[in-house]
Amino acid sequence: MSSDTAKRATFEGDTGDGYGTHRAVEPKGALPQPAWRLDNDFTRIFQGEVLLAVETLNIDAASFTQMEKEGDPTTIVLRTVAERGKQHNPVTGSGGMLLGRVVQVAPRGRPEGEVLAVGDRVATLVSLSLTPLRIDRIRAVRPASAQMDVEGEAVLFASGAYARLPGDLPDRLALAALDVAGAAPQVARLVKPGGVVVVLGAGGKSGILCVAEARRRGGPTACIVGLEASPRAADELRALGLCDAVVAADARDPGAVRAAVLGASGGREADVTFSCVNVPDAELGAILATRERGIVYFFAMSTSFTKAALGAEGVGKDVDLFIGNGYAHGHADHTLTMLRDMPAIRALFEKRYG
Amino acid sequence: MSSDTAKRATFEGDTGDGYGTHRAVEPKGALPQPAWRLDNDFTRIFQGEVLLAVETLNIDAASFTQMEKEGDPTTIVLRTVAERGKQHNPVTGSGGMLLGRVVQVAPRGRPEGEVLAVGDRVATLVSLSLTPLRIDRIRAVRPASAQMDVEGEAVLFASGAYARLPGDLPDRLALAALDVAGAAPQVARLVKPGGVVVVLGAGGKSGILCVAEARRRGGPTACIVGLEASPRAADELRALGLCDAVVAADARDPGAVRAAVLGASGGREADVTFSCVNVPDAELGAILATRERGIVYFFAMSTSFTKAALGAEGVGKDVDLFIGNGYAHGHADHTLTMLRDMPAIRALFEKRYG
Repeated sequence: MSSDTAKRATFEGDTGDGYGTHRAVEPKGALPQPAWRLDNDFTRIFQGEVLLAVETLNIDAASFTQMEKEGDPTTIVLRTVAERGKQHNPVTGSGGMLLGRVVQVAPRGRPEGEVLAVGDRVATLVSLSLTPLRIDRIRAVRPASAQMDVEGEAVLFASGAYARLPGDLPDRLALAALDVAGAAPQVARLVKPGGVVVVLGAGGKSGILCVAEARRRGGPTACIVGLEASPRAADELRALGLCDAVVAADARDPGAVRAAVLGASGGREADVTFSCVNVPDAELGAILATRERGIVYFFAMSTSFTKAALGAEGVGKDVDLFIGNGYAHGHADHTLTMLRDMPAIRALFEKRYG
Repeated sequence: MSSDTAKRATFEGDTGDGYGTHRAVEPKGALPQPAWRLDNDFTRIFQGEVLLAVETLNIDAASFTQMEKEGDPTTIVLRTVAERGKQHNPVTGSGGMLLGRVVQVAPRGRPEGEVLAVGDRVATLVSLSLTPLRIDRIRAVRPASAQMDVEGEAVLFASGAYARLPGDLPDRLALAALDVAGAAPQVARLVKPGGVVVVLGAGGKSGILCVAEARRRGGPTACIVGLEASPRAADELRALGLCDAVVAADARDPGAVRAAVLGASGGREADVTFSCVNVPDAELGAILATRERGIVYFFAMSTSFTKAALGAEGVGKDVDLFIGNGYAHGHADHTLTMLRDMPAIRALFEKRYG
């Protein structure tokens, strides 16, 4: 994975498109995210593609938890990538992102004025579920951060967002934060001063960023309730001093979630609830904790569309239900700046994921 | 299923709750929607329950389409209800709703002032996926409307919304419309005058209601584009005169959807896109047709949470993604009033679903 691999792929000319449909093998010509299998033959690259030497995979939390339950994540990742040409967990449907070094940039197709040079180290901001990937070897696995150090290659399409690794933050820290870069910007759009904000899975990576942004936007009059089942994560969250209450409740028990929220908020339902859990069946708890015409925002990749839709209907709750969009304008800068501005969160993330 | 069944269930006293957790058998004490299996022994009823003699099931469109592909819907429905105690399609996760006659109302637990009498005919406004159901016999199947006439019984929990059948509209028509009662009220909240509105599956039942409401809210300056793959449904939609353009495009082909929308709108992306298709893999088309910071509202029960979330991220589209909530305040009245106010839609629905 050193410079001897540079510029060794054949350029296939103007046959690719910006979204990567040219790499879909099954079905042919599909977009790469829904496609079952991608072409990960990197002896040639197409218009607008960037070939990366992969250093680290940051697996989506819901996906990693599912693989740990199923067996050995290393074996499962190798099998998935061999079968699908991408790390796209067939059970959870989710991926993650990666850190790599630019090996080659194909001519044409990338945005005007963009300067990406061989040797640059970047984190991809598009899901592994749509990123052509070949793994040659897994060198290390860090379950606490759902990261794997690997040798391999990947391709970023012309439309694929990325972030250059910042010089002032450790790589693994940046990678961990960028994996959930969409969280804080979405919270910033939805939280208003004085509201009641509930975060399920508040002690996890995206949960902490949600809580921090909710406090910034909601100010001292907001009531922020964090639910966290892990005692250790709950203690770490409490120590940050950002929540009005940190409550231990199982997000899968809707009655318990609602009772915990009402108990902590003086009987008020949430104006906005963010679900950042990494286990299935947390839809109804989030819905029952939220007021009529409030918002339930699901970041968790373990969320089921039908369970959320029919769950709200079943309990007659007129709430707006959002599918968490991992992309928002300027999300990478937003999230890295938070880490710089909030030393306590940076220290906790370094301890956990660094 | 006549009056001889009235008041024959034993009242179990104050052991039920309004959400129906007392009927969850697997897992015990779960909410009835996520539960795998419900107790459909109706020799006894619990606090707040209403026992109904079922006349007609209105199966969710995505579910019916899936069952037709798998085999014989009649056989599959009987198997599902026998296994799960509810019509909860294990593949799509969706249900539908039913029309029935009140056999018995358990004391206590129902909202103050509510008067529901034995013999009243009602449509349930909560999903079949959470409604305890027993089917004794299937009398007729109408694939065009995804309706089945059956003999059987069901229970409505205290929290379960319902609508009395209106005297001035035929039963089957009312049932068909109430099945998608959530659609129009949600459209009314999101469409503004002069905007570009796209509806995928616009010639279907919920699609037509979305188009009609979008025209009412958007006025003559709105540009409303309906996509419909079935030529016959497209013709019927065109004849309503509500769309600026009705385009034949496969909602599963994202590039084709985007091209069709831009071609019909003078190059403008949608401010709001509603997905009302009944097939999987339509997430990306809806996302690609929508402008930055626009809204994509997924009514389709065939929508995948991860495909929508990671799809938007993968193409770098900063849009708000909504999970369609089948419940909204006053949705039944809203939708039935539309049918009364819009005779052309009523006539089309009577022809198709009456």
